[in-house]
Parts: sequence; C-alpha cells; structure tokens
Amino acid sequence: MSDSATLPPVSLTERARTLVEADWFTTLVTSVIIINAILLGIDTYDFVSPGAHRLIDFADVLITAFFVFELGCKIFAYRWKFFSTGWNVFDMVVVLVALLPNLGQFSVLRALRVLRVLRLVSVVPTMRRVIEALFRAIPGMGAILAVLVLIVYVGAVMATNLYGDAVPQKFGTLERAAFTLFQLMTLDGWRGEIVQPVMDAGHPYSWIFFLSFMLVGAFAILNLFMALIVDSMNDDVERGISEIEGKQDALRKAQTEADESRAELTRIVIAISEELADIRTALEAKPKPPARRPKKTPDQG
Amino acid sequence: MSDSATLPPVSLTERARTLVEADWFTTLVTSVIIINAILLGIDTYDFVSPGAHRLIDFADVLITAFFVFELGCKIFAYRWKFFSTGWNVFDMVVVLVALLPNLGQFSVLRALRVLRVLRLVSVVPTMRRVIEALFRAIPGMGAILAVLVLIVYVGAVMATNLYGDAVPQKFGTLERAAFTLFQLMTLDGWRGEIVQPVMDAGHPYSWIFFLSFMLVGAFAILNLFMALIVDSMNDDVERGISEIEGKQDALRKAQTEADESRAELTRIVIAISEELADIRTALEAKPKPPARRPKKTPDQG
Amino acid sequence: MSDSATLPPVSLTERARTLVEADWFTTLVTSVIIINAILLGIDTYDFVSPGAHRLIDFADVLITAFFVFELGCKIFAYRWKFFSTGWNVFDMVVVLVALLPNLGQFSVLRALRVLRVLRLVSVVPTMRRVIEALFRAIPGMGAILAVLVLIVYVGAVMATNLYGDAVPQKFGTLERAAFTLFQLMTLDGWRGEIVQPVMDAGHPYSWIFFLSFMLVGAFAILNLFMALIVDSMNDDVERGISEIEGKQDALRKAQTEADESRAELTRIVIAISEELADIRTALEAKPKPPARRPKKTPDQG
Amino acid sequence: MSDSATLPPVSLTERARTLVEADWFTTLVTSVIIINAILLGIDTYDFVSPGAHRLIDFADVLITAFFVFELGCKIFAYRWKFFSTGWNVFDMVVVLVALLPNLGQFSVLRALRVLRVLRLVSVVPTMRRVIEALFRAIPGMGAILAVLVLIVYVGAVMATNLYGDAVPQKFGTLERAAFTLFQLMTLDGWRGEIVQPVMDAGHPYSWIFFLSFMLVGAFAILNLFMALIVDSMNDDVERGISEIEGKQDALRKAQTEADESRAELTRIVIAISEELADIRTALEAKPKPPARRPKKTPDQG
Repeated sequence: MSDSATLPPVSLTERARTLVEADWFTTLVTSVIIINAILLGIDTYDFVSPGAHRLIDFADVLITAFFVFELGCKIFAYRWKFFSTGWNVFDMVVVLVALLPNLGQFSVLRALRVLRVLRLVSVVPTMRRVIEALFRAIPGMGAILAVLVLIVYVGAVMATNLYGDAVPQKFGTLERAAFTLFQLMTLDGWRGEIVQPVMDAGHPYSWIFFLSFMLVGAFAILNLFMALIVDSMNDDVERGISEIEGKQDALRKAQTEADESRAELTRIVIAISEELADIRTALEAKPKPPARRPKKTPDQG
Repeated sequence: MSDSATLPPVSLTERARTLVEADWFTTLVTSVIIINAILLGIDTYDFVSPGAHRLIDFADVLITAFFVFELGCKIFAYRWKFFSTGWNVFDMVVVLVALLPNLGQFSVLRALRVLRVLRLVSVVPTMRRVIEALFRAIPGMGAILAVLVLIVYVGAVMATNLYGDAVPQKFGTLERAAFTLFQLMTLDGWRGEIVQPVMDAGHPYSWIFFLSFMLVGAFAILNLFMALIVDSMNDDVERGISEIEGKQDALRKAQTEADESRAELTRIVIAISEELADIRTALEAKPKPPARRPKKTPDQG
Repeated sequence: MSDSATLPPVSLTERARTLVEADWFTTLVTSVIIINAILLGIDTYDFVSPGAHRLIDFADVLITAFFVFELGCKIFAYRWKFFSTGWNVFDMVVVLVALLPNLGQFSVLRALRVLRVLRLVSVVPTMRRVIEALFRAIPGMGAILAVLVLIVYVGAVMATNLYGDAVPQKFGTLERAAFTLFQLMTLDGWRGEIVQPVMDAGHPYSWIFFLSFMLVGAFAILNLFMALIVDSMNDDVERGISEIEGKQDALRKAQTEADESRAELTRIVIAISEELADIRTALEAKPKPPARRPKKTPDQG
Repeated sequence: MSDSATLPPVSLTERARTLVEADWFTTLVTSVIIINAILLGIDTYDFVSPGAHRLIDFADVLITAFFVFELGCKIFAYRWKFFSTGWNVFDMVVVLVALLPNLGQFSVLRALRVLRVLRLVSVVPTMRRVIEALFRAIPGMGAILAVLVLIVYVGAVMATNLYGDAVPQKFGTLERAAFTLFQLMTLDGWRGEIVQPVMDAGHPYSWIFFLSFMLVGAFAILNLFMALIVDSMNDDVERGISEIEGKQDALRKAQTEADESRAELTRIVIAISEELADIRTALEAKPKPPARRPKKTPDQG
C-alpha cells in the first residue's frame, strides 16, 4: 500500500482495488444501503405526497446507479475472482433486479427492489457470519430433508387420490395436497381446517392417515433438530477430546523417552557392576562371579 | 467373482446373486422407482387425457411386474436370509399391496400403490441411514411413550364421563375424547375449539382438568425430547471419555513398568554398593560398614 | 426367606410382608389394574347394555375391595414406613377416592375412579423411573417457574385494568385474564382470538403490551427448556471430567512416588561415588577430589 | 460493623447503610411488595365494595410512600454508586411511575402501578439470578436477532407493496405487514388468517412468498435456539477441558523435572564409571578402556 503510494504510475486496476478496499468506501456503501432501506420503507405509506414519491423514485435511481458503479469497480478490480465468493454474486443479482425492464408485473419488480437491503448482511461481518453459519448447517440436514420431501410427496399423492374429490379446495391437486400436508406438519389448525372437514365429507377413518402423517413428520423434524444440536455439540466435544488426547500423546512420548534414558542408565550401571567384578578379580587375583548381581537382564524397561 | 467368471457352470442361485448385487441393477431399480413416483404424480391430475391415464396404468403394471421379478431374484438368491433384514420385508409388503385384488374400496388400494415410492429410502444408503437412526431412537423413548399413552387413556376415560354428554362431538366416545386430548397436546385451537365450548356447556371449572392435562402432557413431551438429545450427546461424551481413560490407563501401565525397571536398577545399584564395601574390606583388610548408605531398603517404588 | 419357611410360628406381619413382596402378587395387582382400565374404558360406551354396565359396576366394587385389601396388607406389613415413599401415598389416595360417599356431583367421583389406572405407573418399574426422572427435573425449574408465575400475575392485573371493560369475556376478571395470557404464551390463536378483538375494541396500541408479554414469556420458557437440557448434560460431562481427573490424580501420585524412589536411588549412587573416592584415596594413599562428579547436589528430584 | 456499634458518633450515611443492609429491612420490603401484589389483585374485582377500593387506594399511597422512603435511604447511603447496578435503576423507575400526575389516560398509569410487584425479582436472590442469566444470554443472540429484524423489515416492505391493496387489513401499512409477518413466524393461523385470504384476493402464487418467509424465519429461529444451547454447553465442556489440561500440564512439568533429575543421576553414574576406570588403571598400572561402557553419551533424556 505505502509502496504503491510513493510510485506515481499506478494501474487503474490497482486504483479500483484501493478504492473498494478502503474503509470509508465500505462505510459509504453501508450508509447508502441503510438510506435505501429507510426510503423504501417511507415509500410504502399512502400519506406521503406524490411529489415525495417521485423524489424517492429519483433517489432510488441514483442509489441503483451508485450500486452499479460500486459493483463495476469491484469486478474491474478483481476480474473473475469477483465471482468466486457467493456474497458478490448475491450482491450483483439483487442489484441487477432493479435494472430489469418494467414489464406488466410492475409491482412485483418494485417489491423485489427491497431485496437490495439484504446487502446489509453482506457488508456487516457479524451478520455475514450468522448467515454463513446457517449455510454450514445445511449439509448435515440434507438426507433428513430429502426423506421429509419424499414423505410429503408420497403423502400428497395418496391424499389427492383419497380425498381430492371430497375436499377439492384442500386436496384437489398435487400442489394443494402438498401445501395442506405442510400445514398439517406446522400443526396450525390441523383439526378444524383439515382433519374435521375430511372426516365430515364421508371419510370417517381419514384421521388414521392424518395422525400417521403427523407423527411421522413430527418424528422426522424432531430428529432433524436433534441432529443439528448434537452435531454442533460434537464439534466442540471432539475438539476438546482431541486436544486432551494430543497432550496425552505428548506425555506418552516423554514417558517412552524417559524409559529409554533409564534403560541407558541401567546399561551403564550394569557395566559398572561388571567393571567392579573385574576390579575385585584383579584385587583378589582369583576369578569370583558378582554374587549379588541379579540373573535377569534389566534392560526391558 | 473373477473365479466364477472363468468357470462356465455357474449355479442359478449364484447368477441371481451376481445380478441383484450388480451396481447397474441397483441403479435400474432406483430409476424405475423414480419413474414410478413421477407417473403416479402425473396420474393425480385431471387435465391428463383418459388415454394418458390408461398408459400410466399400463406402465404401472409393467413396473409392478419388474418389482416382482426383482424381489423374486433376491428371494431366489438369498433364500430365507432375504427376510432377515427389515428393509427387504418392507420392500416386499409395499410391492405386494399392488397385487391385492381390486375389491370395493378401489381408491384406497390405488392410493396405497404410491407407498412403493418409499422404496427409494431402502435403495439410497444415506436416506436408509436416516430412517435407521430414527428407529434406533425409539427404544429410548419406549417408557415415556407408554406413560404418555396411559395419561391419554386415563384422561380420555375421565373426559368421556365428565363432558361426553355436554359436548358429544368432541368427547362423545372414548376415541373421540382421545383424539380431542391429542389435539389439546398439540396446542392447536385448544381454547377456541376445546376448552371454551366445554366451559360454555355447563362445566365452568373444566379448565382445571384441561390445564392439568396440558401441563402434564407438555412436561412429558419435553422430557421425551430432552431424553433423546441427552442420550445422543452422552454417547459422544462417553466415547470421548472412554478414549481418554484408555490412554490414561496406558500411561498408568507404562508408569508401573517404569517403576519396576527403576526398582530393578535400584537393586543393582545396592548390589554395587555392597560389592564396593567388600572391595574396600579387601583393600583395607579390616571390616568397615558403608557409612553413607541409607538404612531404608529402596525397592518400594 | 428359606429360614422363615422351615420355622412354623411366623408372625402375621412377616406373612403379610412375604405376601406383598411375592412376584405373583405384584403380577396379580398389575393384572387387576389392567382389567380395571379395560372395564372402565368399556363402561364409557353407550351401546353396552344396562346389564353389562351393572356387571362392570359390580366388578369395580370387587376390584376396589381387592385394592383396599392389598394396601391394608402393605400397611400391616410395613407400618409407618409404608407412608415414607410417595408412591404408596399416591396408591392410597387414588384407591380411597372410590370410597368417598356418592354425593351430588356423582359424575366427577365416577370419573376420578379411573385415576386408579395410573397405579400402573407405580407397579411397572420402567414407567416409575420415568415419573421419578420428571420429578427430579422440577427443582431445577423452580426459580424460573416462580418468575413465570409472577410475570403472568403482573400481566393479568395490568390486562384486567386495561382491557377488562373492553373485552370482559377474555379479561373481565383476574382469573380470566391469567387464563387468556396463558393462551397467549401457547401461541394458540393469539391474534385472531386475543389481540385483534382488543385492538378492535378501542385499544389500537394494545399490541405493544401483548407483543412484549409474548416475547418475555417465550424468552423465559426458552430459558427454562435450555436450563433443563444443559443441566442434564452437565451431570454427564461433570461425571466424565471427575473420572478423568481422578485417574490424573492417581497418575500424579504415582509420579510423586517415582520421584521419591528416584531421589533415594540418587542418594545411594552419591554414597557409592563418595565410597569410590575413599577407595581411591586408600589405593593411591594421597587425597584426590573426584574431578568429574558434578558440583550440584542432585537430590532435588 | 461491631466497631461502629461501639463508637457513639455515627454519621447519618453510615446509619442509612446499616438500615438498608439489615436483613429485617429486606424482609420488610419483600413483605410490603407481596402485600402490594395481593391488594392490587383484589382491587381488580368488581364485587369489592367502593369503600374497600378506597381503602386499597389509601394503602397504595402508603406503600408508595414507603418505597420512596426506602429508595431515598438507599440513594443517601450509596450516593452515585446506587445507580451503578441496573436493579436499583429498575426499582426506582417502577416506583416513580406511581408518582406521575394522573392525566387523561388514568387507567394506563393505574395499570403500570402493578409493575412495582416485579421488584420481588430484585429482592429475591434466586429470581434475580434467573433474570441475570436471561440477560447474559442476550449478547449471544445479538447478530441473529439483527438478521431476523432485517428479514422481517424487508419482508414487510415487499408484502406492503405486493398485497397492501388486496388485503389492507393485514398488509395495508408497514407496521401491519410486520405484525402479520410476525404472526406468520409464530405459525398461528398462518393459512386460514394470512395465506388463504391473500391467495383468494387475486394473488394465487403468494404462497411462494409466504412459504419462503416461513422457512427462512423458522431456520433463523432454530439457529438462534441452537446457538444458545450450544453456547451454554460449551462453557461447561470448555471449563472441564481446561481443568483436565491444567492437570496434564502439571503432569508434564513434573515429568520434565523427573527427566532433569534422571539426567543428573546419569551424569553421576558416568562420573563413577570413569572414576572406576581410573581406579582400575591405577590398580593394573596400565591403561585399559572400559569395554562394556556404551559409546553414546547418555545425557539426552
């Protein structure tokens, strides 16, 4: 950084990078996002005068232009690497939505503009970490979610066949049945809005189907939840255990080295013992075995 | 495998096993299940022409035939061992349902055909593990579930006796009362649909019964949930603890061996000490005790 | 047992104890409870003939008599110790309920008879353990439950003062308000049945009160739940940790002993070293210091 | 304490502190709070005679005066330090509420008087600890709560734009939309009261918006809950692990010291060995290397 400041001929790419990585630029982007959020909130009120609505629309065009400039600088600075992080792709998509031509369904596009405010998550590091943690939890749920989707699909096909004619508003098509079964799993108005109408429409034993579905669904969701909690815990427990085990291994290694140095010591002491026997022999001038020396070789430690 | 390929006369049983264990066969079965699921989904729509419905019915017959062939091969290949795994029994039951004669309640049997799609769980290993994990959780819940069933039964008998005449639609029979109490435990519309009607029907103090029931039920379910989470955690904590303790025991054992080898060393050193005393005696030709040698025997380590 | 069988003059107390502790007697009591449960279930149905109802009533009298006999034996066998376990007191209370004179509110007493079926929990050990675990969890919840009750009380007084006149059916009296706030905490129909009627009855800002109450209540219940889970886990983690620490202390103790025995060994070796110096002196007949012996005294280990 | 009792001239500040720290004073305050709670409860009933209501009002004035005196003493005793604990500030605010002049909205102020009863939490230590634990949990939830608020805000702006005209009662203004989306997240009557009316009002695909919102919201709340549980657990696991590691470090240190003392021992033994070689030389009067002594220097342990 300081080097590039002293050297006058700086490339445009370098300048763009310096700009988008500057703290004041991030603060500016964050401020613009918050202003955008407030303006879009004010824009929903009817008591705001038409002139103010036009002003907000104009500010929105300016803000969109600023975001396009900001993302342009980032793409210019990082080239293809820009697209390697999901957050950048997310930023670009929510900004580009506002550039789509205003076709028939104007209100939907207007409404989607506010998604831009979610960029706040991508510029505030603590919120970013929350969302990244949410996404990390997804792989652990994959298989259980697949089973849940399969259960809802099978249940929806069955419910459409069984109750589609009796209660067409709830089970008339596959989508409606799936939606109704999702409602059943949230336990919202399950008896009054779903089970009782079907039972009253000529299917008195339909509660067996619905109860089975609810129990299976609740059990699957319970396990989904448990798997997530237990997974999170395991990471910590396992980290702790591996730390302790690492220290234990160090203790074990030190012990082995101590054993070796003791074996070495024992070898020297035996050598001394034998040397002494020789000395005695030399002294007494007659061979005599070292009587008190143990028979067992002691270098097994 | 390679041996059986070189030897021409292979038994039929062997050939059937080779077939059902082949990867391409499993992929084929999985594909047929998915096609079956899609066809049964399309079949629920009314906008599908009658000709298409007939085509789907014909495809369903072919698919059923294929499944019968597949399970036949498996039974032929494994004989009685086929029935030893629950998944095979499940596969057979859901396939055989389609072979039942189409009696009066045609629609129920048609609807049960889709259960075959659940075979996807038995052929996809990751989904299989999810279901096996669910089933492993059941024994830990046994006693609490038994208590819950008992509580609902006792509550249903009481509610039928107390409120059966006042609100026959909800508490008229034992089944209805049990169903209503189950609704109470899911907390769905408990006041508007259950407690208020009973209170308004001449039982102003019935809220005592219902509140007690809800608290007892919620408490039991809470404990069911907790027991499952804590059980799952314990397994991991206990495994970690037993690993650490295993390593500690190894350290302890190594320490004991080190103690023995040190005791051995001490014995040799004492022998040297005594030998030296003898040498001195021999040198000076007069007995003299080794003054600085400690009195305590040092082989206690 | 075998001794008392050979000795003829057994006291009545002893005989009563032998009876109530016999396995066949427990099985008999369990069977009678289950038969009682089934009979009381059948008794709720209207299609049962009046004669059958009379038969069931007669059987109920017999069963009550049997239970009175059983508990009488137990009290005779254990005297005052009978009342020391809560289960016995529970058994006695649910049996005595049936002996109360049939006054005006006959149906309530008839309904309470079925509580006797809950004795199944007290005779089946696994179910007993479940209930005992539930009761053990209560002390850990004490303080949070007290806070919850205080919050509901304060909220109920406020709601009665604020909304009692506008919506008397929900907030007219302190009890009704408390009941409605309990409903709010279960999230059942909170908007449609509680908040919207109050907002429409001239209190447009009442949602602030209700929302605050819901958030505070949900937060307290969440913490109640968490405290229970974390408490259960801690017990296991703490037990594991104290086991590991116990083994670590044993290792430490063994290490200290090893240090002592090594210090002992060092003392002997130094004695040998000095002895050798003496021998050399004796040999060479002139004093010479042991040049290679280290200066530092090595008995610090 | 005992010193100040023997010395007659005690300052007023000292006396005030002695008073407010006395056990009997705390008991008195607790009793007055409970009496206040009971009186305010009785006051809600209409069957209480107007005279009794006037009596309760008078008692309330006395109680308020007592609380003002109590807090005055505390402020006098601790001066500015009084305001350093949140509990004191809370106590003062709930007492001062009763001193506000009775303006138009009399009923709201009357209702707020009961908040004084929450002072029970600040005087009972076990309840105090519960609330302090709740507050300690808040920082861990900060970022997830911020994300949740952002999601609700963005969702509310979108819903107001999309469905504000179709269902003005639920989505007419930003506040109403936010309130309705909060209801959606509590899953209370989500289909019957929210999604179905919007779908029926000309937005057949609005279920996509609502379902996405519910899934995102449920997922965020699930993670909030998990983060709290896992955080609580981690504290205990980490404390346990650091205790074990502390003991392991002590073991390691003792081992290092043992290694040093063994190295010292080895040095002495080598010195002995060399001394012996010298002695032999002196004895035999010809140089001879100590054949059995190992080549490797053994002071590496």
